Amino acid sequence: MFNYKVTVQYDGTKYSGWQSQGNTQNTIQCKLETVLSRMLDKKTEIFGAGRTDAGVHAKAQVFNFKSEIKLDEDAFMADMNGFLPEDIAVIGIEEAPERFHARFNAKGKTYVYRLWTGDKPDVFLRKYVYAFPQSIDINKMRSAARLMIGKHDFLAFSSAKAGKKSTVREIYSIEIMEEGDEVRIILHGNGFLYNMARIISGTLAQIGCGAIDEGSILKAFETGSRSFAGVTLPACGLVLEKVDY
Amino acid sequence: MFNYKVTVQYDGTKYSGWQSQGNTQNTIQCKLETVLSRMLDKKTEIFGAGRTDAGVHAKAQVFNFKSEIKLDEDAFMADMNGFLPEDIAVIGIEEAPERFHARFNAKGKTYVYRLWTGDKPDVFLRKYVYAFPQSIDINKMRSAARLMIGKHDFLAFSSAKAGKKSTVREIYSIEIMEEGDEVRIILHGNGFLYNMARIISGTLAQIGCGAIDEGSILKAFETGSRSFAGVTLPACGLVLEKVDY
Repeated sequence: MFNYKVTVQYDGTKYSGWQSQGNTQNTIQCKLETVLSRMLDKKTEIFGAGRTDAGVHAKAQVFNFKSEIKLDEDAFMADMNGFLPEDIAVIGIEEAPERFHARFNAKGKTYVYRLWTGDKPDVFLRKYVYAFPQSIDINKMRSAARLMIGKHDFLAFSSAKAGKKSTVREIYSIEIMEEGDEVRIILHGNGFLYNMARIISGTLAQIGCGAIDEGSILKAFETGSRSFAGVTLPACGLVLEKVDY
Repeated sequence: MFNYKVTVQYDGTKYSGWQSQGNTQNTIQCKLETVLSRMLDKKTEIFGAGRTDAGVHAKAQVFNFKSEIKLDEDAFMADMNGFLPEDIAVIGIEEAPERFHARFNAKGKTYVYRLWTGDKPDVFLRKYVYAFPQSIDINKMRSAARLMIGKHDFLAFSSAKAGKKSTVREIYSIEIMEEGDEVRIILHGNGFLYNMARIISGTLAQIGCGAIDEGSILKAFETGSRSFAGVTLPACGLVLEKVDY
């Protein structure tokens, strides 16, 4: 068996997220598995580095799949792109060690949340940013972001249910960048709970415009209560930028 | 009567171009006139700086319209954006002299044609670039572009019909920029004939990849024959960047 590591880009606007769930076929995973199964003439399962929510985009999501036959990577990539819809594109494919697994071997992930703070919309970015026409104090956001760096129980910053599974994650860095009318929140961590990137971004955005103060972050960590964290920002502004191995 | 100069941005993907034509209502002009007529409670005509073809985008198209009442520009702009579809956005509105006309007073226009030369698609740019996965010689394009600068009869570089109307236009500059997998052709001139920006871009792109040589440009000017110019590139890669007054 050959094992392939694939990097894929997608505009998540029209999809119900990465993972096949319930009976919707409208997921990125489903589109990719359909094309691969047809090309390899065999029902083929793929293993993604992580699930992205409905509407979330990816610049470089990673998955792996097994094949009984050795592939010509470049030709196979071009063929896949021919079969895939135009909002999903394979941008890299390489043979990986037999035991490589896109999720278990991932060391970190980078998510970027894009806030559009201008009072006029930008039609070309409308699907990839969240319109948040507020006056934002970047320094407040940066100061608050520092409180989140490191290993914490992020239960309060997620829609995950408290249970047996650990909700401890490590955030390596949070960068806040201002570029024209856009504020980008760049999150790098070893893993993200359900909705965690959007809730951390919502908390920082609300701190930036003075709706809540950074003390809430400490209370959220102490109590594990979702009510101290900020809002869950819409999916459209979020993009999975990179997966590290 | 008050006269207003408006700057508007649009994603042309879904529209049949700027100008109301035949019996299609699916034009940018029609969408804008419908909203303005409703807001001013009076059938209102707008005068665009130029027509963009079906599928062509604009970062800053300009039009003017007359109003019997004096407007609060900022509030009016916000209201217009509330009524317009999300792929059309007003980004500026100001009172203009009574005789100001967006077309007759325009001194120049800048169009940008975006070629995507990478062998892998970019899903986020797919609607705003033309996929042209060729190896391109930028210096050949720059050298050929120099032949087009100045005042020429651009009949051969247009889909305009020879007739009474002058097909002489002046190109002030053509800049070719390379940025990662993208090549941008930036055209600045006093006016553009029907399809002219797309045919000039097609000619330069074909010269860049060696399909035709720059001598064709001289023959096209001499003969006025469309057959010596290059292909008409697809609308999706073209954007009206700016109108000068």
